[in-house]
Amino acid sequence: MKTTTIGIIGGGQLGRMLAMAAARLNFRAIILEPQPDCPAAQLANSQIIAAYDDRPALAELAKACDVVTFEFENVPVEAVRYLEKLVSVYPPPQALEVAQDRLTEKQYLNACGIPTADFRPVDSQADLERALGEFGGRGVLKTRRLGYDGKGQIVFQAGDSAEGAFARLGGVPLILESFVPFVREISIIAARGLDGKIECFDPPENVHRNGILHTSTVPAAISTAVAERARDAALRLLAALDYVGVLGIEFFVAGDDTLVANEIAPRVHNSGHWTEAAAIISQFEQHIRAVGNLPLGDPRRHSDCVMQNLIGDEIDEVAALALEKDVLIHLYGKTEPRPGRKMGHFTRLTGRRS
Amino acid sequence: MKTTTIGIIGGGQLGRMLAMAAARLNFRAIILEPQPDCPAAQLANSQIIAAYDDRPALAELAKACDVVTFEFENVPVEAVRYLEKLVSVYPPPQALEVAQDRLTEKQYLNACGIPTADFRPVDSQADLERALGEFGGRGVLKTRRLGYDGKGQIVFQAGDSAEGAFARLGGVPLILESFVPFVREISIIAARGLDGKIECFDPPENVHRNGILHTSTVPAAISTAVAERARDAALRLLAALDYVGVLGIEFFVAGDDTLVANEIAPRVHNSGHWTEAAAIISQFEQHIRAVGNLPLGDPRRHSDCVMQNLIGDEIDEVAALALEKDVLIHLYGKTEPRPGRKMGHFTRLTGRRS
Repeated sequence: MKTTTIGIIGGGQLGRMLAMAAARLNFRAIILEPQPDCPAAQLANSQIIAAYDDRPALAELAKACDVVTFEFENVPVEAVRYLEKLVSVYPPPQALEVAQDRLTEKQYLNACGIPTADFRPVDSQADLERALGEFGGRGVLKTRRLGYDGKGQIVFQAGDSAEGAFARLGGVPLILESFVPFVREISIIAARGLDGKIECFDPPENVHRNGILHTSTVPAAISTAVAERARDAALRLLAALDYVGVLGIEFFVAGDDTLVANEIAPRVHNSGHWTEAAAIISQFEQHIRAVGNLPLGDPRRHSDCVMQNLIGDEIDEVAALALEKDVLIHLYGKTEPRPGRKMGHFTRLTGRRS
Repeated sequence: MKTTTIGIIGGGQLGRMLAMAAARLNFRAIILEPQPDCPAAQLANSQIIAAYDDRPALAELAKACDVVTFEFENVPVEAVRYLEKLVSVYPPPQALEVAQDRLTEKQYLNACGIPTADFRPVDSQADLERALGEFGGRGVLKTRRLGYDGKGQIVFQAGDSAEGAFARLGGVPLILESFVPFVREISIIAARGLDGKIECFDPPENVHRNGILHTSTVPAAISTAVAERARDAALRLLAALDYVGVLGIEFFVAGDDTLVANEIAPRVHNSGHWTEAAAIISQFEQHIRAVGNLPLGDPRRHSDCVMQNLIGDEIDEVAALALEKDVLIHLYGKTEPRPGRKMGHFTRLTGRRS
């Protein structure tokens, strides 16, 4: 029996959960990650301990694998471009390019007919002051690259001084995004197979704390029309990218039910963790099915639920959580609970599918 | 943060699923198994490649672990007795002793007030002929030790010749069991924590083919009284053994709703695999919670379901199964689909909990 081996670039919790899903479908998993004994490698068949852009290591990975995927969006694009000459790589590297730069990302979304916040590129202090002027002095200044979980951002309210802000974020290319007045945040976790078929999980409603996802609740308190708009955006984006695998899109929902895309993640997504508890096919299995050339699974959920992250010391809540009914705990094998570090999550089933 | 390491003796699919459940609760898992790259080691933190009774390997395992458990009931008792001088071992070795000998097993069950088939020890051809005479020429002759999945058995119908039967089974200690007229088979998967608390999953109805479990269906077509009797048997047995961990008991259900215990498995059990798909806490997590000194989880299921094994070439059905809705596939990472070999299983959700 032929065994298919999937390479996973990145050794965090997403890679860990992908490795488990891969194993359950008889795929072997090899992790490329510089940190030894990383969360993913603990559950994978083997690990290549090397930097993500280490050419000999990438060549070794390509040789050992039938297909390579990744678990985070900041994999160096050159590494993936090099890799795809040697082995199939899914999702497509273009999705990484689009997602790694907030400016490119918004332009691409708009080109797909998906609304975003208004935005201006900011390459100097003068650009910043001009852009703030156009947005009434308000907006969120972000680095175009490498920001996540609220890091590398400055929020401007009307009247705030912008003095030195460009330099404060490192003098790197920035983007100023206008505020979006929203009543809630949702996301869509969608998958596209090698055959072009697309399946979406029901959109969760997401609450962030300190810029980090806190809870995802399913179903979201949204109309069918809003859910359909989120699905439609996913269909457009995945088709445009000729995407293969799971992708998440985060949205703001305005009071008038308009939907504004915030950002995309070309990978399994924290707001899709609930699927392992409340759907028969998890987002991790869905991604493995897509990149492993199996048919996509049925994304329907059997239960309503709330997923909550365990950040830093919140890992100490596990003892109490273990006493509760209808709670699935999932921890990531990280030994040091640093502030802001995602240590695990839990999903509480809140009833049968509503 | 203190990390607890669980040693698992045995590297098959049960160890593999235990290792995954352990990881999700931040336990590390070390497998002791002579076969390199065994199903369990693929998902565990490490493997000690050695025979189950290799003293230096057992000592190494004890040193590396906070607690040791096992995934099959034929672990040599002397190995476990040696191990328990060095480290906590759950379930208790006595459970292995009872389960490894069909005669001891039936005597122990009867002593707990749990009915079994009538039986006679058979240590010679003369014993066999006498016992068959007492049972009207009918019964099942089994080796007392090391038989499983229908191997090492001879079935006698009235009029069958017993000539040479004792020698045919190797001249080893045997047991003749009387036939139990049954309308169905069920099992109970029960867990007992270090605090003595006991939780039971709903009993599945089991169908065997060629002596190997084929399907487990939940709920079983049994009365509440029968389900209660199965639970009551589990409570008696687990308490008597001062058991810690998950244990399975297989029963025959007669037409008059009487229950006869067939055999016990002091470990997670094939007829409990459905729990990973239809309950929030799987039998694997329940076992890890018990031996890892966490509170037992709530065994309630959210859905009705049917679990079916994939034996040998049935693994080829996976491509078609992957197209079906409400089906969770779970494969064991075995490359050679030999006849009778358990390659994986799948669970079909058949509706909300009835």
